[in-house]
Amino acid sequence: MPAEEHRNASPAAPLPPTDTAEEAIWLWTQIKAEARRDAEAEPALASYLYSTILSHSSLERSLSFHLGNKLCSSTLLSTLLYDLFLNNFSTDPDLRAAASADLLAARYRDPACVSFSHCLLNYKGFLACQAHRVAHKLWTQSRRPLALALQSRISDVFAVDIHPAAKIGKGILFDHATGVVVGETAVIGNNVSILHHVTLGGTGKYGGDRHPKIGDGVLIGAGATILGNINIGEGAKIGAGSVVLIDVPPRTTAVGNPARLVGGKEQPTKHEECPGESMDHTSFISGWSDYII
Amino acid sequence: MPAEEHRNASPAAPLPPTDTAEEAIWLWTQIKAEARRDAEAEPALASYLYSTILSHSSLERSLSFHLGNKLCSSTLLSTLLYDLFLNNFSTDPDLRAAASADLLAARYRDPACVSFSHCLLNYKGFLACQAHRVAHKLWTQSRRPLALALQSRISDVFAVDIHPAAKIGKGILFDHATGVVVGETAVIGNNVSILHHVTLGGTGKYGGDRHPKIGDGVLIGAGATILGNINIGEGAKIGAGSVVLIDVPPRTTAVGNPARLVGGKEQPTKHEECPGESMDHTSFISGWSDYII
Amino acid sequence: MPAEEHRNASPAAPLPPTDTAEEAIWLWTQIKAEARRDAEAEPALASYLYSTILSHSSLERSLSFHLGNKLCSSTLLSTLLYDLFLNNFSTDPDLRAAASADLLAARYRDPACVSFSHCLLNYKGFLACQAHRVAHKLWTQSRRPLALALQSRISDVFAVDIHPAAKIGKGILFDHATGVVVGETAVIGNNVSILHHVTLGGTGKYGGDRHPKIGDGVLIGAGATILGNINIGEGAKIGAGSVVLIDVPPRTTAVGNPARLVGGKEQPTKHEECPGESMDHTSFISGWSDYII
Amino acid sequence: MPAEEHRNASPAAPLPPTDTAEEAIWLWTQIKAEARRDAEAEPALASYLYSTILSHSSLERSLSFHLGNKLCSSTLLSTLLYDLFLNNFSTDPDLRAAASADLLAARYRDPACVSFSHCLLNYKGFLACQAHRVAHKLWTQSRRPLALALQSRISDVFAVDIHPAAKIGKGILFDHATGVVVGETAVIGNNVSILHHVTLGGTGKYGGDRHPKIGDGVLIGAGATILGNINIGEGAKIGAGSVVLIDVPPRTTAVGNPARLVGGKEQPTKHEECPGESMDHTSFISGWSDYII
Amino acid sequence: MPAEEHRNASPAAPLPPTDTAEEAIWLWTQIKAEARRDAEAEPALASYLYSTILSHSSLERSLSFHLGNKLCSSTLLSTLLYDLFLNNFSTDPDLRAAASADLLAARYRDPACVSFSHCLLNYKGFLACQAHRVAHKLWTQSRRPLALALQSRISDVFAVDIHPAAKIGKGILFDHATGVVVGETAVIGNNVSILHHVTLGGTGKYGGDRHPKIGDGVLIGAGATILGNINIGEGAKIGAGSVVLIDVPPRTTAVGNPARLVGGKEQPTKHEECPGESMDHTSFISGWSDYII
Amino acid sequence: MPAEEHRNASPAAPLPPTDTAEEAIWLWTQIKAEARRDAEAEPALASYLYSTILSHSSLERSLSFHLGNKLCSSTLLSTLLYDLFLNNFSTDPDLRAAASADLLAARYRDPACVSFSHCLLNYKGFLACQAHRVAHKLWTQSRRPLALALQSRISDVFAVDIHPAAKIGKGILFDHATGVVVGETAVIGNNVSILHHVTLGGTGKYGGDRHPKIGDGVLIGAGATILGNINIGEGAKIGAGSVVLIDVPPRTTAVGNPARLVGGKEQPTKHEECPGESMDHTSFISGWSDYII
Repeated sequence: MPAEEHRNASPAAPLPPTDTAEEAIWLWTQIKAEARRDAEAEPALASYLYSTILSHSSLERSLSFHLGNKLCSSTLLSTLLYDLFLNNFSTDPDLRAAASADLLAARYRDPACVSFSHCLLNYKGFLACQAHRVAHKLWTQSRRPLALALQSRISDVFAVDIHPAAKIGKGILFDHATGVVVGETAVIGNNVSILHHVTLGGTGKYGGDRHPKIGDGVLIGAGATILGNINIGEGAKIGAGSVVLIDVPPRTTAVGNPARLVGGKEQPTKHEECPGESMDHTSFISGWSDYII
Repeated sequence: MPAEEHRNASPAAPLPPTDTAEEAIWLWTQIKAEARRDAEAEPALASYLYSTILSHSSLERSLSFHLGNKLCSSTLLSTLLYDLFLNNFSTDPDLRAAASADLLAARYRDPACVSFSHCLLNYKGFLACQAHRVAHKLWTQSRRPLALALQSRISDVFAVDIHPAAKIGKGILFDHATGVVVGETAVIGNNVSILHHVTLGGTGKYGGDRHPKIGDGVLIGAGATILGNINIGEGAKIGAGSVVLIDVPPRTTAVGNPARLVGGKEQPTKHEECPGESMDHTSFISGWSDYII
Repeated sequence: MPAEEHRNASPAAPLPPTDTAEEAIWLWTQIKAEARRDAEAEPALASYLYSTILSHSSLERSLSFHLGNKLCSSTLLSTLLYDLFLNNFSTDPDLRAAASADLLAARYRDPACVSFSHCLLNYKGFLACQAHRVAHKLWTQSRRPLALALQSRISDVFAVDIHPAAKIGKGILFDHATGVVVGETAVIGNNVSILHHVTLGGTGKYGGDRHPKIGDGVLIGAGATILGNINIGEGAKIGAGSVVLIDVPPRTTAVGNPARLVGGKEQPTKHEECPGESMDHTSFISGWSDYII
Repeated sequence: MPAEEHRNASPAAPLPPTDTAEEAIWLWTQIKAEARRDAEAEPALASYLYSTILSHSSLERSLSFHLGNKLCSSTLLSTLLYDLFLNNFSTDPDLRAAASADLLAARYRDPACVSFSHCLLNYKGFLACQAHRVAHKLWTQSRRPLALALQSRISDVFAVDIHPAAKIGKGILFDHATGVVVGETAVIGNNVSILHHVTLGGTGKYGGDRHPKIGDGVLIGAGATILGNINIGEGAKIGAGSVVLIDVPPRTTAVGNPARLVGGKEQPTKHEECPGESMDHTSFISGWSDYII
Repeated sequence: MPAEEHRNASPAAPLPPTDTAEEAIWLWTQIKAEARRDAEAEPALASYLYSTILSHSSLERSLSFHLGNKLCSSTLLSTLLYDLFLNNFSTDPDLRAAASADLLAARYRDPACVSFSHCLLNYKGFLACQAHRVAHKLWTQSRRPLALALQSRISDVFAVDIHPAAKIGKGILFDHATGVVVGETAVIGNNVSILHHVTLGGTGKYGGDRHPKIGDGVLIGAGATILGNINIGEGAKIGAGSVVLIDVPPRTTAVGNPARLVGGKEQPTKHEECPGESMDHTSFISGWSDYII
Repeated sequence: MPAEEHRNASPAAPLPPTDTAEEAIWLWTQIKAEARRDAEAEPALASYLYSTILSHSSLERSLSFHLGNKLCSSTLLSTLLYDLFLNNFSTDPDLRAAASADLLAARYRDPACVSFSHCLLNYKGFLACQAHRVAHKLWTQSRRPLALALQSRISDVFAVDIHPAAKIGKGILFDHATGVVVGETAVIGNNVSILHHVTLGGTGKYGGDRHPKIGDGVLIGAGATILGNINIGEGAKIGAGSVVLIDVPPRTTAVGNPARLVGGKEQPTKHEECPGESMDHTSFISGWSDYII
């Protein structure tokens, strides 16, 4: 995500360096500064901010600590989970890069996201996604029972149910996140934004490739249900509450139950390249012909 | 909410005194009597009822204790949260009055609500709403990081995600409540009833006033998605599963995805004044012309 | 559920004996073997598998332990809940038979379910349903406050809100389960499959029989909302995101918001007998006339 | 312990029936009545009293619950321990009889013991002893690692360290109990009273029978250290702070460091039969010739 | 405790104002400054310091929070205990004054006590004593079951067993504290220092006044056992490991088992006025005639 | 500790390789084998053994996990402590070597120690000592507040109070351990055995070097109190309950209160070189002239 784009989208937020290597350092510095400022302003929260952020030497330690404490249970101890997360985040730069990209995505796309630390601590979509990435890695290493146990904890704690086999890109915003369900063979591209209650579901009892493939830059509105091994083209937009069972072409908008393309099937209206970043949920209303109250 | 109305709506339930000052005392007396009766009938639950209700000297203490224990985590201790809730409920009569009004709302509108103590202990919509009110107060006092941390805990524990800036009236029933999302600039009037999975969402990545305004007495059915800075007029009714992006006039019913007015756009059918209290979800079916299975 | 049917549906999964008495023994043997295999392969999970499964002498003990630890809170101790569950599962063969049938349902219908132990440990729909059955039994014994407290814990922990009075058959699959709401007078038959976010809701503030009756073998897609005292006939299929307020005939498919019958109201298309088992969510698309993107 | 003796010793305390079978019922009835009285007088304690006593149907259930919750840790769950204790107390009448005898011993010998429920809930000596009896049973069943794990938890939680192989009679009072250490081959008779910081220790690094044998009715004062395979005769009295490494004859008193017999080695003074019950710690002072301040 | 005395005793430590009213403010200011300094120097401890000290507005809130979290159990919740402690410390200036005096005592007498916050957070003798004072107050209010439950928790958690009826003065140092036992009718004066394993015990099974009375300024060495209703005169010193059953005159030293007066019974050596403050444990050796290794 | 010596002392126990580097590997292999054997024999304990031992890849990880879970509190999280312990044990071979030596010491000296894993999991003296070593390291790094917080947790949980500045050698056995107190300037040599209730205390309120120095191979019996900056010579033996305030020469035995040398001050009896290893507590009785019962 180029800094320039951030600048346009959200001028008030601070901008990361363009160099990727420096970005991670910059981001952790920002997070600590935010937490320090908040700890000073709010003594009642200082203990929480020190334990979750300020006592740690890196983002991966902070994140591992927070996930370990959030996802633990009486039978899956926080120390075990902390160890598991830390081992993975410490040794896999891709996991760290994805976490950074997701933090930037939330900060620059969601106007309710007031700081990086706000996202790191409080966004269950962000936390569920990072935990999923570790579960996914375990899955690819054939450590499936552990991956499935993690999925279960994520679903219990965050009400976000992502199968550990699902592939998810970077720069993802799961906004609000409650009720999101992503199936086993689903694929989600980069810079996608997905609202709460969205389902990327399968088609029945037989296995195999049976879940949606979501292109880069797609925006999926709240409560949309997308079922089957279909393609949602790059930059497509799925309206809130839509039910989609057929491919959606790139940069078009599908709305309704059953879903139709805005502008019609033959010549659907084409919109901006990356609604997953611009997050425009509603400007397509005028193109939705029978939407008249 | 005049007692007379309660009487009509739900004759079996006991009625509060008409004097507001006496209402709070009456309500706490009712709750303790219910809990005492249940503790005697069910020894397995007595410990729970004593710790949550019967050991406390007031509704605000009981509620603060219950919320502190429900919302705590390993990094946000119950004692800290208890202190926070108790300080707010003890010193702010508006918070207490709103809690009382919400208890009455649940008791008189929801036929599955068998007692005030049932709502106080078990209704996550009620508990989420009271915790939100404290978060909202913190927000208005510029204690934003703490307000956001509370929002996050409410979302984790109850799967109810209400931005602390959102303004919510009194006499609110969040029925079942799982999956409710209420955005930053949303406003909810008095005597509103909102079912589960309802979204009062925004319109994209830019800040500013971007969420719905819900008038007094509105009823919003399960799974309805209402997006953007639009007005849902007083006493309007939003059908389950509706997707609404345009203003809805007072005392009319919007249904469907996309939503349309029952009776038609030009002369929509007008119904009772306060569906948020009468809770009639389905009688409008006959007016929904193409709803024919 | 005859073994033959399992064989067809999912040839890779092991088959239970046809004798019911032997089935329970076989199932527990399978579960222990799976857990032992997983514990050996994954030391990080062995402690969890021993505490939840391998240290127990029967499925009812394992399930009681797991539910007690999942549903406990600081005011409802795990030991109390464990005792409650164990007393009920130990003494009521119907509860045990229903749990077995649900395990088989998940294993044979859900291609993402890789083992019985996976379902037992990780499926919140399965766990919520077993806990509900105990709550329902308490309800029928007039131990209502305890039943309602259980409902509340199930709703907090699993985001599944089933009124303890609701009657639920055997061989039920609540897939993903987040956000399911089932009202007080709802009835669900045998071999039903219900996806997440499904509502079986009531019609307003007056009591009495006011929730849906779901016939045997029904399949209800994700996010469907079914309201009122209506009948969903045996083997009917409700499309994802549908809003249904009128009876649906047996072996027909209702889709859309508002829902219509595939094939038309007069001569709706009839399909297989038991979609709740075949789990075909999407093959009806071709029959959904205006579903054209 | 004959009722007559109780009557003389402590006239204010209620007396159990002389029939042993009725004694257990009477005792549990007393405990529940005490707990009910205290719960009514002290709402802040009612939740505790209901969860530990009043919600249970028998003394063994109450005791198992209390021990499970006291001795659990993050790696030894309360549900597991509760199960273990309940299985043992439910099936072994000797364990139950010993617990009853110990409760009576505390109530009738310790003037600071105001009720049976006080002892059951609050006396760490009583609780440690009951947990030891289960550990001892496990030891005799060759379940040694579990027995040793219990010993460790008892030592952590109560600071009472009793080897699971040690044999302990009935009617035992461990008063205050902190710091008591009892070695592997120690034997303690019936109706013995042992104060805090008492050691029944071994003699070195070689195994075999190497710890003291304490006769019936012995009283051992605070801080006494008794080392080696020696006999403390029936009804003997060991003064506080004594260090004893040689046999002590019946009904004599040993005091000092190193210990000497009151009255002299040749013709030691003989006292009452059962100082373990009369609990007279200090009347022997006059016989302690050089004890002159 | 006059400041002048502090000055002599421990010149390095900061001195409180001589005005009592200002002392409390000064003390809390010192504690916060210490905690802030430590939090800055040690991020790993900052969360702990903020939650226990820096987030609180007064010493009584900090102390109540810390005791509530230390003494809670799964059946006695931290919120309940916090409430209990806060109610008592907030409304009773004597409890607060005693806590301040004890903090000063530890800081000025114990060379291992490096700061007030060190004592407040880490000294189990200090914490046990403050919790006892609340238990004692409950006892005098006839809230005996709650007082005894507190005693039990203090004994479990700190291995300090003080009967709630025991009367304890101000400026008390329980150094190390493990194993201290203080009986029901014991009385401890002001400015007393008591080492670990000290017993102030009774004389048997009969009630009534049966425990020691400890005068002002007394020093009791580690492991001393003092039994019966005897007087330890003002400024007396009891040697480590002594066993004392007879009155000890003021400003004399008793040593040994059985204890004898240094200097002899007839003309015992008189020493400084307040060994409880000077803490001289060992200078009396030369006067202990037969102490010759 | 040469293997030959082990062989003599305890022929039944397995012997480590003589090469130090191999010893650590051998030890961990032994521990895992023991735990595996116990887990197979005792399913109820298997979860505990997997979480504490079998899921870990090294002794330092197992030990860090176990200490983190034992010493944590609601304000000092297990994840924080685990991290702290793991960082220290992973990077400091001296800490690991000392832990190994202590495990061997317990296994070969204490006949009640049936396996290395028994000591690792259950011996609070062993655990307290390892945690102290980390606290001591923190102390030497001027991380004193954290070191003191650890001391406090060790004292609360294990009733073992060792000042973090105290220097402790290798091959230490703290047997039973309850009530041990070791002061700030105390020094303990190698191969020392210390029983429970032992105090190495100071002499008063002034700082400086004021605690005992314990030579190599010393054995200190239960309840002994050693006060002041004195030397206990190499291989000396301190009888149970002794009170020692003057130097004790090497390989002599001091007994009594006040302590005297066995054999007399002028020509004390000399015994074996290393009673700390031979653990002979009582054979000196015959040399204790006035010990005649």
